[in-house]
Amino acid sequence: MTATPGRSLGGRFTESTDPVLERINRSIGLDIRLWRQDIAGSRAHAEMLGAVGLLSGGDVSAILDGLAAIEAEFEADAFVVLSADEDIHMAVERRLSERIGEPARRLHTGRSRNDQVMTDTLLWLRDALDGHARALAAWVAVLLQRAEDAASVPMPSFTHSQPAQVSAVGQWLLVHAVEAVGLLRRLVDLRARLTRSPLGSGASAGGYLPLDRGLTADALGFEAPSINATQSTGSRLDLLDAVAWCGLVGAALSRLGEELVLFASPAYGFVRLPDRLTTGSSLLPHKRNPDGAEILRGEGRRLTTLFASMASIQAGLVSGYSKDLQADKRILFEASDLVADLVALAHVHIEGASWNVSALRRACTPELAALWLADALVLAGMPFREAHHRVGLASRHAADEGISLAEAFGELAGDDATLRGVHEALEGQTTDTLLAGLQTAGSAGPASIQAQVASLRAELGQLTGR
Amino acid sequence: MTATPGRSLGGRFTESTDPVLERINRSIGLDIRLWRQDIAGSRAHAEMLGAVGLLSGGDVSAILDGLAAIEAEFEADAFVVLSADEDIHMAVERRLSERIGEPARRLHTGRSRNDQVMTDTLLWLRDALDGHARALAAWVAVLLQRAEDAASVPMPSFTHSQPAQVSAVGQWLLVHAVEAVGLLRRLVDLRARLTRSPLGSGASAGGYLPLDRGLTADALGFEAPSINATQSTGSRLDLLDAVAWCGLVGAALSRLGEELVLFASPAYGFVRLPDRLTTGSSLLPHKRNPDGAEILRGEGRRLTTLFASMASIQAGLVSGYSKDLQADKRILFEASDLVADLVALAHVHIEGASWNVSALRRACTPELAALWLADALVLAGMPFREAHHRVGLASRHAADEGISLAEAFGELAGDDATLRGVHEALEGQTTDTLLAGLQTAGSAGPASIQAQVASLRAELGQLTGR
Amino acid sequence: MTATPGRSLGGRFTESTDPVLERINRSIGLDIRLWRQDIAGSRAHAEMLGAVGLLSGGDVSAILDGLAAIEAEFEADAFVVLSADEDIHMAVERRLSERIGEPARRLHTGRSRNDQVMTDTLLWLRDALDGHARALAAWVAVLLQRAEDAASVPMPSFTHSQPAQVSAVGQWLLVHAVEAVGLLRRLVDLRARLTRSPLGSGASAGGYLPLDRGLTADALGFEAPSINATQSTGSRLDLLDAVAWCGLVGAALSRLGEELVLFASPAYGFVRLPDRLTTGSSLLPHKRNPDGAEILRGEGRRLTTLFASMASIQAGLVSGYSKDLQADKRILFEASDLVADLVALAHVHIEGASWNVSALRRACTPELAALWLADALVLAGMPFREAHHRVGLASRHAADEGISLAEAFGELAGDDATLRGVHEALEGQTTDTLLAGLQTAGSAGPASIQAQVASLRAELGQLTGR
Amino acid sequence: MTATPGRSLGGRFTESTDPVLERINRSIGLDIRLWRQDIAGSRAHAEMLGAVGLLSGGDVSAILDGLAAIEAEFEADAFVVLSADEDIHMAVERRLSERIGEPARRLHTGRSRNDQVMTDTLLWLRDALDGHARALAAWVAVLLQRAEDAASVPMPSFTHSQPAQVSAVGQWLLVHAVEAVGLLRRLVDLRARLTRSPLGSGASAGGYLPLDRGLTADALGFEAPSINATQSTGSRLDLLDAVAWCGLVGAALSRLGEELVLFASPAYGFVRLPDRLTTGSSLLPHKRNPDGAEILRGEGRRLTTLFASMASIQAGLVSGYSKDLQADKRILFEASDLVADLVALAHVHIEGASWNVSALRRACTPELAALWLADALVLAGMPFREAHHRVGLASRHAADEGISLAEAFGELAGDDATLRGVHEALEGQTTDTLLAGLQTAGSAGPASIQAQVASLRAELGQLTGR
Repeated sequence: MTATPGRSLGGRFTESTDPVLERINRSIGLDIRLWRQDIAGSRAHAEMLGAVGLLSGGDVSAILDGLAAIEAEFEADAFVVLSADEDIHMAVERRLSERIGEPARRLHTGRSRNDQVMTDTLLWLRDALDGHARALAAWVAVLLQRAEDAASVPMPSFTHSQPAQVSAVGQWLLVHAVEAVGLLRRLVDLRARLTRSPLGSGASAGGYLPLDRGLTADALGFEAPSINATQSTGSRLDLLDAVAWCGLVGAALSRLGEELVLFASPAYGFVRLPDRLTTGSSLLPHKRNPDGAEILRGEGRRLTTLFASMASIQAGLVSGYSKDLQADKRILFEASDLVADLVALAHVHIEGASWNVSALRRACTPELAALWLADALVLAGMPFREAHHRVGLASRHAADEGISLAEAFGELAGDDATLRGVHEALEGQTTDTLLAGLQTAGSAGPASIQAQVASLRAELGQLTGR
Repeated sequence: MTATPGRSLGGRFTESTDPVLERINRSIGLDIRLWRQDIAGSRAHAEMLGAVGLLSGGDVSAILDGLAAIEAEFEADAFVVLSADEDIHMAVERRLSERIGEPARRLHTGRSRNDQVMTDTLLWLRDALDGHARALAAWVAVLLQRAEDAASVPMPSFTHSQPAQVSAVGQWLLVHAVEAVGLLRRLVDLRARLTRSPLGSGASAGGYLPLDRGLTADALGFEAPSINATQSTGSRLDLLDAVAWCGLVGAALSRLGEELVLFASPAYGFVRLPDRLTTGSSLLPHKRNPDGAEILRGEGRRLTTLFASMASIQAGLVSGYSKDLQADKRILFEASDLVADLVALAHVHIEGASWNVSALRRACTPELAALWLADALVLAGMPFREAHHRVGLASRHAADEGISLAEAFGELAGDDATLRGVHEALEGQTTDTLLAGLQTAGSAGPASIQAQVASLRAELGQLTGR
Repeated sequence: MTATPGRSLGGRFTESTDPVLERINRSIGLDIRLWRQDIAGSRAHAEMLGAVGLLSGGDVSAILDGLAAIEAEFEADAFVVLSADEDIHMAVERRLSERIGEPARRLHTGRSRNDQVMTDTLLWLRDALDGHARALAAWVAVLLQRAEDAASVPMPSFTHSQPAQVSAVGQWLLVHAVEAVGLLRRLVDLRARLTRSPLGSGASAGGYLPLDRGLTADALGFEAPSINATQSTGSRLDLLDAVAWCGLVGAALSRLGEELVLFASPAYGFVRLPDRLTTGSSLLPHKRNPDGAEILRGEGRRLTTLFASMASIQAGLVSGYSKDLQADKRILFEASDLVADLVALAHVHIEGASWNVSALRRACTPELAALWLADALVLAGMPFREAHHRVGLASRHAADEGISLAEAFGELAGDDATLRGVHEALEGQTTDTLLAGLQTAGSAGPASIQAQVASLRAELGQLTGR
Repeated sequence: MTATPGRSLGGRFTESTDPVLERINRSIGLDIRLWRQDIAGSRAHAEMLGAVGLLSGGDVSAILDGLAAIEAEFEADAFVVLSADEDIHMAVERRLSERIGEPARRLHTGRSRNDQVMTDTLLWLRDALDGHARALAAWVAVLLQRAEDAASVPMPSFTHSQPAQVSAVGQWLLVHAVEAVGLLRRLVDLRARLTRSPLGSGASAGGYLPLDRGLTADALGFEAPSINATQSTGSRLDLLDAVAWCGLVGAALSRLGEELVLFASPAYGFVRLPDRLTTGSSLLPHKRNPDGAEILRGEGRRLTTLFASMASIQAGLVSGYSKDLQADKRILFEASDLVADLVALAHVHIEGASWNVSALRRACTPELAALWLADALVLAGMPFREAHHRVGLASRHAADEGISLAEAFGELAGDDATLRGVHEALEGQTTDTLLAGLQTAGSAGPASIQAQVASLRAELGQLTGR
């Protein structure tokens, strides 16, 4: 009774795997990306096995040397995947066997691919999140810088996609800065929850060997071993959580993408993207297409759907590892890669965008004084609802007659001294005074913008530890 | 020139709203649920307007009295919604006008429905999350209690839905306890981020009145006003975040549901649900259906899809409030209600379930000693891969010949003294010794279960501040 | 041994249902909507039971009379739901018992709620789809009419949200007409697949009574009984299919919504929505918000996510009815209601929109002649890629120098006679000639628009049988 | 003024593309898969250009020869993608230029990548769907064959995942056959709607050249050119439709996967998967894991989420092509590949599964006679609700006392002659008579199974044209 050809875990089996199943079951195309983490985990595991006496010092040395050599192969892009390598774990172990022989066959002592893959994935996720944190911090810094530069450049704010009031380019940039800082805060919270090492959990409920899971946890930078072996090999909540976060990034940046597409269109003309951020049409020679902004918008939206994909393979599964979960890495990698791409795209777009001040000013039409006018009437003692109604009538009159809001208000004001006074003040308003007059906290007014930048800069410093 | 009939904000308009639009645009059927928060926000706003001199003391008093009376109407279920009430905000203001006249028309000074609805929603969400935190804590407590009770009741653990090794009912319950504590930790993090009051942001970029947004933030239990008025009226990231959390709850509890459905089936027979947790069939008189467990499973899955729904209305929108966002409350309420239902269902099921010890023991078949056997061979000096292979051959032999794993291993052991020794030890193993022998941290072994309970109890105490 | 209080199907049980489960398990709040179908199904079932001799003629008469009376109660909005009514099926049977006594207790012979609910739901879906077909046909008719009216009104077409070439309002309206006809064609296909009656399938695998399922199928307007009882009580593919179709409607109409929002904004100004299709702001008196268009956009997007919700409760379930499926009606009703709302909104918007011809003409800027210019060079013998390159250079030159495309092309043309000839022709082009010159099938040119309208009208007639 | 280095469409530009944008914007990694379709489309386009006189005969010949040579390169896996190749369309055109020079620069006359990519994609989709149709037909054939073989092998049917009544393996296989035939019918409908060729639509609203779009439509096997150029370049409804269909396949096959996982577990033991369809554990030597069935279940579920992904990039876009749509192929390819994999997996699993008749019979416990008993009481004249109640009491009594349903019913029957007669008949029932006695259409009874197979075979023949 011998092993079955083509079966790496074959004692139990008498047939080789069905080719359809074998092809679909192989995951190395995806998880080869975990090579660095897989080697790090094996290194920690081998040292622990040595420390507790399950491996001899010689075996540990051989394994560490072998792993170092394999690491070098990967770094030199010289590692050869064989068709029998089902996944990164079996590939590394197979190669280690080729290099060092028997000690390699002792490495899997006390662990399973079930704890190994979660260890690898969490290590990878930690690194990926740290990268995202750096990219987000840089992105916030650009936004804050540009917001300071454009603090007093007028721009309409929009509600219902319609111009609402006189605001500032700085205010708009700070919208995205607040979102980005919020994303970074969530990332910091998420990262701080990845403290438990699955390594040594075994297949599902632990094992019979005197492993020291605290040692491997420590070596790999975790705070402690995972609490429950069955949970830590079968749960993917941490990954679902991470994909949710990626979805938040997608939701936020797709909004930026939509705005850039709009603002770069001739209809708005608020922003000019440099040639390097636009592309040509294969048929229409005059086109300068904002492909990057569109990708922000579209891929940001798509990113929000990956939560459902990730959840679909977890929800309703029994406890313990199931093969359904193999798709988790496909989704996690795609989500994380999209985050990296989208933050990078957002960064270069805001860095490269130049503002068309005259178009922005043109868009600040006289009727955007409506809020100022209503507030002025309130300050003059009128109940707000009456003020609202009067300004509404004036707006309608202005539109019907093709006159300015100030003229219309004047015509409707009659002889009332208060109204006449407000009318006079209204006539003195310009886009710049309307912007400068904003005074509530969080508004687009100059003091508020300054305070927003300071507050966000402080929060960024606190989140990045600088 | 007067207001248009049927238009509550009508100065600007000459036609009444199209009936199709009016019907679809009305949200009061949903947002009436925010009445308590809407009144609280108005109270804080009125007091602030008084404090900064925008309302007289008399007006403030009249408004507060009016709001108290309306609150009483709601509490007595006596508030009458009129067909012209578009949403809860307009309904309360309309009723206030009926009750107190002119001062009511001054209440909306300096605020917009855009900041008002976000304020209401965040206040509601804070309360909902606090309720979920209490329910989760109680749920964890039940799980820990039952896990202690059933710490030594054997049960197979499963991987790939197939029996993997001898584990314990306690271990299985602790899987769900770890998940629940993890959900609670995420909830605490989420809750701690809801610190900024949108109130006073106005429609989109602040306003011209000397509001003190810090006062209302304080009165409503927020740490500070929101940073950027445009962001805090147009962003829904906090809500998307909350719905993501609800999705995590759904993913976790649907797994419990699936397991309860399986374990309560005759095929498994691990658990008996009491009559009060089963339902009858309209046609098949003998059925005792686990409807509650199925709802956990199905509604838990559905809950995971609400993230995509919530994201779909945000992603790609321009900054500032858009009407698309009106659906946010529908989704948030549904998600939060499902969480409340599912945690309650999970609670009564675990509380009511009784374990069928003999079925559990029957399911711990002899081949589940395979891991013990492989580990024993390792402890006897054999490389793990060789041990794995030998045990695999023995398992195959046992299955082919219809004999026990111990017999099969004995037959294959030959004269080798080490193998014979291991074989002898294997013959002495029982389900109970296989369980008791588990020794790694996180395993189903007795010391580990005790440590898990202690660790989770400590974490629960820390998270609930007790 | 007697029935348990509060248990309608109680022989098997000794406890009343847990209140948490009872509350969550009740579905009558949703499925009461199926009353008409439930009664129709019971009527057909009773007649069939009579025909095969399982009910006496007297019992059949009593049941039919009782059902007619209950139908009248529902129509008069006088049916009283009791707290013990779990769902519409039990409610109708309970009421029938109250009215006619024993014969009511014979009605459920040979059927189960499992086949009953699918029968009710398919009957409901057929009606709903027929309603959608009528609404879509009316919507197409409006689009075709408006397209004919605006066939020669110029408008830029867009790619990448940037103006691409001179097109026509008619062409844009026909985009939506083609989509709508495509949706209607899919609806017709979908409707034609709903041919099999589940009634009489029983709980899961049929039964022992001599039912004539062909009779009930016929009475209810189905072609034949369902093929496999287990499949027809446990599968929800037909409903998932319907929700997919609803998602297609959402995807298509949300695009219209986005365009209406844009085109109604001052930046574009292409379209004016009448007052009855805009709403006011609670704070900004001048606003005319396109709420209906935003709801089209946002709810259309949300509608596309319901497929994942519906699939989440089906995918991975074992065959046969499971309680998870109870949520199917919630999702189906929501999807279908959204379709009805969105088609109605689209209809009133296009009906009410008026085109701002001068803004449309202004948006047809000179550089939109680029395609004409490239095509003209091709007709003069130049390879297209060279033509493309030359026009690109001219566009850049025009933008750099602030001159028209024609001027720029002239400056770059040099003395080449061919180029000079093309330049001369270019100078003669206007927005109207650029539109009139389009000649490919499907283009915005006059002949094409006419052909499109004719083709769509013919297809509409074929699909609606008129 | 010359072209910008690294810009293939560069007349308009003065900078090379930002490397971040260039990397993210490149789609050739994905769309290279369309090479065969891209070449077919170019061939048809070139011939049409020749036919209408826009290309000389020599140019057409040169292009056709060049395309044939490139096709050979692809078939020999010798086509070299350059880093400047943005997508498959530019890569083929670039290579054609290298091979034949100037004529290649005339090929893009009158077309755009916007119509080209939709043409390629629809051609690809047609082929993919045809492949799926063949695979589904083969899958149905296997199911029907196995259903005939196992028509009389008893098996419980399940509702609520609990045994419901005596059914047959054949009935269960036919559940999946009905689903598969339903999927095939939907596929045929879907395929029949792909009749319109986008080729020649140009960038968005047609063009100025005398193209004959009917010629290319015909050459590519379409019925006619697309109706509206803007719609056919900007809409992705056909692809969304296809992804919905893929989602239906996923929903259906994931159910099979779940059942196979359960039925192959020791708890059920209904089915034995051969070694070639199970895999080993890296740690647990005795495991035979049903990875293929789990992949069916998990990937089937994930497949249902791709509809939301696809919709997310379409919904809410303005008309005409936008770059957001670039992700359409990623999603379409993934969905279609998953369908191919899952149907293949389902096929080999049903082909390879062997039924454990004794376990199946064991699972048909005596209480599954409950429906027979209730029906017998009805036939003896008892109202169904009373019969249901009495059988419920007997079931409870049997469970309480640990006796069989027949004994329990006998004890409760008392002296009533009718009940005693039914009791006697009940005592004569066996699993086989309970199965054989099922007589309703669609039931698991022998006549029904035979009729189901015949009906499905006929429908299959009609759908596949055989």
